Amino acid sequence: MITHWYNILADLDFDLPPDIASFGRTGGGGIDPQLPLALMRQEMSRQPWLPIPDEVRECYEAWRPTPLRRARKLEKALGTGAAIYYKYEGGNLTGSHKLNTALAQAYYYRAAGARKLVVATGAGQWGTAVAAACQTFGLGCQIFMVRSSLEGKPYRRTIMELLGATVTASPSDETKVGQRFRTEGDLGGTLSIALGEALEAAAEPGARFCAGSGETYSLLHQTVIGLECIEQMKAAAAWPDVVIAGLGAGSNFAGLSFPFLGSTLVGDKPVRALSVEPAACPKLTEGVYAYDFTDSSERTPMQKMYTLGYRFTPPAMHAGGLRYHGTAKIISALYDRGLIEATAYQQRDIFASAALFTKCEGIVPAPESAHAVHAAIVEAQRSDTDGQHPTILFSLSGHGLFDMGAYRAFLDGEMQEELVPREAIRRSLALLPPQPDTPERGS
Amino acid sequence: MITHWYNILADLDFDLPPDIASFGRTGGGGIDPQLPLALMRQEMSRQPWLPIPDEVRECYEAWRPTPLRRARKLEKALGTGAAIYYKYEGGNLTGSHKLNTALAQAYYYRAAGARKLVVATGAGQWGTAVAAACQTFGLGCQIFMVRSSLEGKPYRRTIMELLGATVTASPSDETKVGQRFRTEGDLGGTLSIALGEALEAAAEPGARFCAGSGETYSLLHQTVIGLECIEQMKAAAAWPDVVIAGLGAGSNFAGLSFPFLGSTLVGDKPVRALSVEPAACPKLTEGVYAYDFTDSSERTPMQKMYTLGYRFTPPAMHAGGLRYHGTAKIISALYDRGLIEATAYQQRDIFASAALFTKCEGIVPAPESAHAVHAAIVEAQRSDTDGQHPTILFSLSGHGLFDMGAYRAFLDGEMQEELVPREAIRRSLALLPPQPDTPERGS
Repeated sequence: MITHWYNILADLDFDLPPDIASFGRTGGGGIDPQLPLALMRQEMSRQPWLPIPDEVRECYEAWRPTPLRRARKLEKALGTGAAIYYKYEGGNLTGSHKLNTALAQAYYYRAAGARKLVVATGAGQWGTAVAAACQTFGLGCQIFMVRSSLEGKPYRRTIMELLGATVTASPSDETKVGQRFRTEGDLGGTLSIALGEALEAAAEPGARFCAGSGETYSLLHQTVIGLECIEQMKAAAAWPDVVIAGLGAGSNFAGLSFPFLGSTLVGDKPVRALSVEPAACPKLTEGVYAYDFTDSSERTPMQKMYTLGYRFTPPAMHAGGLRYHGTAKIISALYDRGLIEATAYQQRDIFASAALFTKCEGIVPAPESAHAVHAAIVEAQRSDTDGQHPTILFSLSGHGLFDMGAYRAFLDGEMQEELVPREAIRRSLALLPPQPDTPERGS
Repeated sequence: MITHWYNILADLDFDLPPDIASFGRTGGGGIDPQLPLALMRQEMSRQPWLPIPDEVRECYEAWRPTPLRRARKLEKALGTGAAIYYKYEGGNLTGSHKLNTALAQAYYYRAAGARKLVVATGAGQWGTAVAAACQTFGLGCQIFMVRSSLEGKPYRRTIMELLGATVTASPSDETKVGQRFRTEGDLGGTLSIALGEALEAAAEPGARFCAGSGETYSLLHQTVIGLECIEQMKAAAAWPDVVIAGLGAGSNFAGLSFPFLGSTLVGDKPVRALSVEPAACPKLTEGVYAYDFTDSSERTPMQKMYTLGYRFTPPAMHAGGLRYHGTAKIISALYDRGLIEATAYQQRDIFASAALFTKCEGIVPAPESAHAVHAAIVEAQRSDTDGQHPTILFSLSGHGLFDMGAYRAFLDGEMQEELVPREAIRRSLALLPPQPDTPERGS
């Protein structure tokens, strides 16, 4: 059982560009004032190993360590010489890896006196995880969920309500942010808008906004995934040549890859870390590395990250959890320095791989997780062409049992090839906030 | 890891009434001629321990042993002095206990030369399990699913199709049985009709009808559940006073309770075995112990069982898996002799308990499994009134992630109190086939 989270910042020879208060006014580190001190300390820490509180570890023990499996039937179906392993995070009550950090955050927020958490969710996995975590620690929970996603997956609302949460479709009439976007005719919503609404609603006494999966401490909490993988791979007398994970805000990718990157730094065999984004929301492969808002409220500190611009609205897509306009600042910095890789695929190809995986391995991948499935298959097939036999490890971050509508569309041949929305990206990037001219710390 | 199934017939001091070929013509034991010899031997065996084939055990190892958990938060919410444990069978790819026997049956059918299995399914759990098992063993799969259930849970079709199965809504136009019931205006269907259709469709070369969850060998395969529980309870230094499971055709209830009943027979502390049925389909509490058809084809051998009559159509209900008109002949014989107990509850009360369980324990029970949740809560509360502190163990046989429509109705206050359909039962029992006057073997 893992007892400490791994903090990759301790092992990097550079600092992250500091956050900046809105519109270029340099603030006190730009940290959210609502953030519990414990999470703030984790955000700033340069210690490599941070202890997991006992109460959180007891929660983890209900479903961790999660299984690491070799996809032998998939290998056989592909006829590949590659060894393909996957780490399955969908076996917990909420169906995804998000619970790892939701429990930790709810624990720290309760310790800091919060009585209720307010969050935004895209595909609903984060919302479900926070609802479960709030239930566990006796906190109230309000969830703003992107309306287009909520309408496509009504069962997500039901499970969050069963877990005691209040669910609001965003853009809503309940906040000024929501009203503004509704007036502008945007009824489908984005995660960026939902985040703005949640921030506004969290102003009531006792309530706290809980940021979600892209924060540095959130990435930290997810390292239990990769740390378990290292032990499990060593127990299997195997070691990956490449680790692969889907990329949204970044916690799933970081959770798998950071421990391996750190392990490489201390002398283990080098591991490639490959992130996979949807072609419709390609922040690493088509975005810019710039200061941007993390949400539509324009009130939170700006972070330097790979972004498509905070006003970017991706086309409708089934992997709602990967529609965020930016990605975590650590991941952005690693990508900027060439320490990790990125690729993007289209959803029809991704679902074809996910359907094959389901038949072979008997688990239906969440659309977000299906990105990693597809990339692993592509890597395996490419390696066969090259005559190599690598060991591939990917994160199956969640199950797709609430995404049957998407699979139905795939089976019925009604899933379209969406294109990279280059014109929308160009327009959105033109709306980026003014960039600071302060030199970056450490650069 | 369990290596053998437990055969309760070896430890009973009576024989089961023999099956009878249709309409009183005594047949050769009444065994389905399509049944593989290995399954027929299991059906007839009086050996207590029957080995699990290596290939099946390797499949089991992907998710077994399943977790046994103490529901401490539920106990606390109830303020009960009872200790409540549950065995969770929903963690496998198909979401229920049914995979335990589906894999074994597919293994034996393949060994006997089958190339395709044809099955009927009510709520879809059996169909999903057989689809997965056929995928595992390289067999084709055709599934007749009760239309009313399929329409209420369209995602079930999708997952079965993803697993490579062909899914047909029953009553269908594809069989004579289906056409007959459609002509009579029954479009919603019953499991009995779907079984008749599957039997007819299995006549094509290479195809075999796979009977499902009420057969004696199916109950046998499910005993892995209770056998694991015995080891797990002993490891926890605990022992149940009562074991509780929902009752449809009987495999879930048998899987949990038979090993405990057998354990009692060899001197362990006696355990009450309580089965729970829906008030709308109360075969033990309101039915008769008589020879009846197992399906609407009127072509399969008649079994002596507790039944509401093979033409009985229960009211619409959310626990589609408990709508079968009869129950397994071993369970019927045990109930007839007072060796097990039965109770029936209404679905609104059942869902209230399931919603409480979800909040406390973080798993959404399948509507079928929710029957056991409710009965466990009732037992705990009753024991508190009596000043006792029993240990209760129930089977959480599957998750309800495909049953969110039912939970939605519950949350919205739109779930009705259905009544015991006494008039429909009376009419149906009047249509029972003529009873044989041959004396029962062993009586």
